[in-house]
Amino acid sequence: MDADKILEAHRRARGKLEMHPKVKVQSKEALATYYTPGVAYVSKAIYSDKSKVYDFTSKSNTIAIISDGTRLLGLGKVGAEASMPVMEMKALLYKKYAGIDAVPLCLNTTEEDEIVAIAKGVSPSFGGINIEDIESPKCFEIVEKLTDSLSIPVLHDDQHGTAMVMMAALINAMKVAGKDLKSSKIVINGAGAAGLGFVRILSSIGLKNVYALDTAGLIYRGRNEHMNRFKEEIASMTNPEAKSGTLEEAVEGASVLIGASAANAFTKDMIAKMGEKPIVFALANPEPEIGYAEALQAGAFIAATGRSDSPNQVNNLFSFPAIMSGLLSARVKKVTYDLLYEAAKALAKSAGKDISREHILPDASDSRQMMKAVESIAIAVARKSMETGNARVSVTPNEIRSRIRQSVKVYARAEKKLPE
Amino acid sequence: MDADKILEAHRRARGKLEMHPKVKVQSKEALATYYTPGVAYVSKAIYSDKSKVYDFTSKSNTIAIISDGTRLLGLGKVGAEASMPVMEMKALLYKKYAGIDAVPLCLNTTEEDEIVAIAKGVSPSFGGINIEDIESPKCFEIVEKLTDSLSIPVLHDDQHGTAMVMMAALINAMKVAGKDLKSSKIVINGAGAAGLGFVRILSSIGLKNVYALDTAGLIYRGRNEHMNRFKEEIASMTNPEAKSGTLEEAVEGASVLIGASAANAFTKDMIAKMGEKPIVFALANPEPEIGYAEALQAGAFIAATGRSDSPNQVNNLFSFPAIMSGLLSARVKKVTYDLLYEAAKALAKSAGKDISREHILPDASDSRQMMKAVESIAIAVARKSMETGNARVSVTPNEIRSRIRQSVKVYARAEKKLPE
Repeated sequence: MDADKILEAHRRARGKLEMHPKVKVQSKEALATYYTPGVAYVSKAIYSDKSKVYDFTSKSNTIAIISDGTRLLGLGKVGAEASMPVMEMKALLYKKYAGIDAVPLCLNTTEEDEIVAIAKGVSPSFGGINIEDIESPKCFEIVEKLTDSLSIPVLHDDQHGTAMVMMAALINAMKVAGKDLKSSKIVINGAGAAGLGFVRILSSIGLKNVYALDTAGLIYRGRNEHMNRFKEEIASMTNPEAKSGTLEEAVEGASVLIGASAANAFTKDMIAKMGEKPIVFALANPEPEIGYAEALQAGAFIAATGRSDSPNQVNNLFSFPAIMSGLLSARVKKVTYDLLYEAAKALAKSAGKDISREHILPDASDSRQMMKAVESIAIAVARKSMETGNARVSVTPNEIRSRIRQSVKVYARAEKKLPE
Repeated sequence: MDADKILEAHRRARGKLEMHPKVKVQSKEALATYYTPGVAYVSKAIYSDKSKVYDFTSKSNTIAIISDGTRLLGLGKVGAEASMPVMEMKALLYKKYAGIDAVPLCLNTTEEDEIVAIAKGVSPSFGGINIEDIESPKCFEIVEKLTDSLSIPVLHDDQHGTAMVMMAALINAMKVAGKDLKSSKIVINGAGAAGLGFVRILSSIGLKNVYALDTAGLIYRGRNEHMNRFKEEIASMTNPEAKSGTLEEAVEGASVLIGASAANAFTKDMIAKMGEKPIVFALANPEPEIGYAEALQAGAFIAATGRSDSPNQVNNLFSFPAIMSGLLSARVKKVTYDLLYEAAKALAKSAGKDISREHILPDASDSRQMMKAVESIAIAVARKSMETGNARVSVTPNEIRSRIRQSVKVYARAEKKLPE
């Protein structure tokens, strides 16, 4: 790719989104209705019942994307300003695929308590918060503290979203391979945000035959080095025999190998050591643990990566807009792994009946497939939340569908008018 | 006004603004340019030179409107949620009149230090901050701390904006009355955000014959009760003889009486006690210190209020979009009173040559007059800032004009398509 051309495109745009009016304020009457003195009636109505802020303001459809720029893409600790273009694009994708208005808030602090205080502080203006590209384990602490204290849902896409899409891919991969999850040994390499999410979602459906590794090897109960309370949690949910060992040792006989670690962390030898019809998800970005073709050569029955230039892209475009749409629609209280698992099943199902070794997920670049997936996921999230008392309002699938379709249509119309 | 109709209008809209795309992201190539992997080049460019965030992102044209809801309109302490509809309208007016994208951040804390920390925390994403409807003297502390510590300008519309528009009205009123500011006694009733702003702007041009009062009467050096460091500042800049007294006593022989206090604070008797051709600005909202007609009956030569239903509306529509536009255009470092005075002169001038007792300011509801005023003010703000080393970039009047006109045109086109 031509860096200069890319920079020029971003320079020309100076941001990816801008505000357009939803109400016409041209007459004195309109100004009096929407601004002073009329707006005082609205403020008073909200003052007497805070929850009415959802009825009268943008809170119901607006979220904050909060990052401190400590773990941006593959770039690492680049700071708030350098995170802005990425968060802006995330905001664009929220709007494009789910009609959600998202505001990037890139913070000039990396202190956990300050990030928590800021997110809490601004929460009245937003219907949800997306925590993004914050280093672990700080991100887990932040998400936990916010989830415990806020009345709006906190989505940690690096953890929750990635886990949901991986789970959908895994459901379909097992189906294609004719395997059963319960009896499969699953090895996860990486214990960052995605790795923890993988362990949590697999544990939430009762799987025990799971082994997770970080750079120090297998995580096990009683390990003393390189631990923190999230790795203790991983240890308690995995590795029933509390084995120690390397990745090479851990993959022995495994059905599934999932990476959320680093480029080239997987070798052909490792795949060769796995069990029958091995499934290999190499999800490190932008360079996978092992390339798609190489994984197949090494004997993988199904392989997937995060890349768009090979089949089976495990793509977060399926996660954040759709999940957040469900969260906002039912005013969900908290993101839970049971709702993420329902979302994963919905995404898996939306890949259709013709799933195959090269097609375990829908194609995100096909807008029909994409919109079908977004709607199914949002509906699944809302439904599960309503069933479990985790929703503040009731919403029907049709309401969710029409909400998404309407706003996506407005967006598409606006986008069509833009120059290429 | 019909409260139910107003509530219904706000309910239907659920917010006043929504995001539209500025870039087309339909092809895989566009996704690769604006999102991964292309966006990494942009992040890296900003990482090596933070100031490039202005070139590549929405920061250059996006501000935060921050309020804690402790002093909303005439409603007082209503909290964050109830402030949302007002801040949303402020955001709409920023966009409509100056093409600026503004994000309401209504905070669920009223603690000074927390508000400062939150505003600092989110500042990397914004080109400017508007502090709004925060009670005094806390608002002054917050504005001062943020102004001292941030590299982006902090506009306190209740203080800075109101002072600017009042000053413009005063310049023209003095001209119509054939009076000279230097030799005029000016009495200011109210020492909140607007009152302090009035004293500061008058002091910034060297006026000494100024008297300010709060609910405890005249503020003077050596007064011991109801003081804080901002009232000490007022005392040091006004009332050279350090007189004590009531409003009735203070207005004796005054040329100008300005209220930023409370409904019905001025009586006809007070106006009768003023000097020749008295000028009375009764700016309390929504009910003025004395009605327009009543003030004239009592002998005011020129009267003004904040209301749109009588002549001479001192209207903040002239202040915040225009001032912020100038601040963003020249990347001004700090809001100063010298820059606000230049803005006031520009606004006064844009009222045209036919100023009269009933026409001391342009008519904000006339969009031609409004846009002329906005452009003049923005240009004056940028020019003064460049002259005084208070600007980070150079910008020509034509660049400012075309920036405003282009974005206002986009807005107008979008607004036109909306239903009434």
